[in-house]
Amino acid sequence: MRIGFIGLGIMGRPMAGHLAAQGHQLSTCTHRSGPPVELVDAGMQVLSSPSAVAADAEVIILMLPDTPDVELVLFGPGGVIEGLAAGTTIIDMSSIDPLATRGFARRIEARGGNYLDAPVSGGEVGAKNAALTIMCGGEPGIFEAVRPILKLMGKNITLVGSSGAGQVAKVANQIVVALTIEAVGEALLFASKAGVDPAKVRDALMGGFAASRVLDVHGQRMIERSFEPGFRIRLHQKDLDLALAGARSMGLTLPGTAAVQQLLNACIAQGGGDWDHSAMVKALELSAAATVGSDQGS
Amino acid sequence: MRIGFIGLGIMGRPMAGHLAAQGHQLSTCTHRSGPPVELVDAGMQVLSSPSAVAADAEVIILMLPDTPDVELVLFGPGGVIEGLAAGTTIIDMSSIDPLATRGFARRIEARGGNYLDAPVSGGEVGAKNAALTIMCGGEPGIFEAVRPILKLMGKNITLVGSSGAGQVAKVANQIVVALTIEAVGEALLFASKAGVDPAKVRDALMGGFAASRVLDVHGQRMIERSFEPGFRIRLHQKDLDLALAGARSMGLTLPGTAAVQQLLNACIAQGGGDWDHSAMVKALELSAAATVGSDQGS
Repeated sequence: MRIGFIGLGIMGRPMAGHLAAQGHQLSTCTHRSGPPVELVDAGMQVLSSPSAVAADAEVIILMLPDTPDVELVLFGPGGVIEGLAAGTTIIDMSSIDPLATRGFARRIEARGGNYLDAPVSGGEVGAKNAALTIMCGGEPGIFEAVRPILKLMGKNITLVGSSGAGQVAKVANQIVVALTIEAVGEALLFASKAGVDPAKVRDALMGGFAASRVLDVHGQRMIERSFEPGFRIRLHQKDLDLALAGARSMGLTLPGTAAVQQLLNACIAQGGGDWDHSAMVKALELSAAATVGSDQGS
Repeated sequence: MRIGFIGLGIMGRPMAGHLAAQGHQLSTCTHRSGPPVELVDAGMQVLSSPSAVAADAEVIILMLPDTPDVELVLFGPGGVIEGLAAGTTIIDMSSIDPLATRGFARRIEARGGNYLDAPVSGGEVGAKNAALTIMCGGEPGIFEAVRPILKLMGKNITLVGSSGAGQVAKVANQIVVALTIEAVGEALLFASKAGVDPAKVRDALMGGFAASRVLDVHGQRMIERSFEPGFRIRLHQKDLDLALAGARSMGLTLPGTAAVQQLLNACIAQGGGDWDHSAMVKALELSAAATVGSDQGS
């Protein structure tokens, strides 16, 4: 299939690689530093604009940083919409604003295109291993038509609902992950401050209702003081911005999410924008005069 | 073995039943309403005081509501310490204050007794199914000696550290569970308010880093509006009191725990002390003018 892929960063690059490896013909548009050499070697064409990519492709995948980036690529000068043929499907795998997504979908559909929002979780490791969780919003027929492409990049691929529902699920995912990291951070810090080995507490808790992927993975990172990303604090901050902006526009109170955003701000204040999000515990440690995973364990 | 069992409530009654079923000779002391008939039928002796129970037993198990109850049974008039023989082991399976526990252990050990704190999680269902998670603090030799007894009541039995470490782990467990319930509540409420089916969001999220036992079990309860306990809000409130009192005495800030305690207060204000703790979402719903699991799903 002829697939346009716009956004070849840390995530997009390995995702596009999986598509090329299965024989899909990829194109992209001018890239800051030229497109990755392994994709050019695999036959990726480099065109002059998003509209040129759209004119050439049956499916267009976007993997961009934020809402304004997606808006610019779709609707800006030389944007996708200018080259869009009827029946072409846009899959936006970026994590962006759910309400804006609904507007984008309507504008694309008004021009005869199809639109699926399909943000992912699983980070760089998930992208490299084609093991991303993909949360989709759109029409069931469109979803089924592109599911074989999504399966080359991820597992756990769910159609959550109509347009925007994938982005809503992604925001929900980021709320749960952020607040669960805080939960684990407070608990392990309580144990450490009380002189109890946080590694043994983590082991004990994994057997019961406190068990979670975050306790398993991020709890271990806190104990090992291993804060290489993983998923960067500044990106999680952006995702919680989406949550809080959505809460404000819908009329909804998210007290835990708002408070956790402040902890991320405190990490940024310490120069931690590029720390893994498990380093949120450092913001808690500031006001505890103690750390998880130091040598005060029993 | 001759085992004294003091505290035959919702939890203690089935736990003692498992011990009786394996042929252990149980005794207790005067019970408000007489001891449960099935335990009397199984040969449980009813003695006049905790000290009489202590004099008769090789191991004494406590399963009491709170710190003052344990203190009274151990050290009050006619308390355990008055009848305690050297070498007798006290296993306190109540969930009480970790710092007080260290003091209790020292007083018992000064009289030649052994002390293990062994609080549980898993609730009434776990107690009935002998599937409790048991978090222990004490000497390894004492732990190993009574482990066969603990195995009749639970799975996932961990020696977390020295005296008090079991209670510290239990507090940590309750922090994680409470804050994760808030995480799931905020996420599913965000989805519901955005018009997306929270059940589908839950399904999508279970595939990734947001996966947890709480998302699985308590998320489902929120969606089904099924708030029969389970674990009661007033009991979780008590456990977070222990966390916050410990934080204050140790000099430690637990902002998420403090905020979640306020959500539990808001449930109490609505008459919800006996709701399941997953009903914490109702406190969030008050300021959202929306509910999780109503019919606004897609």
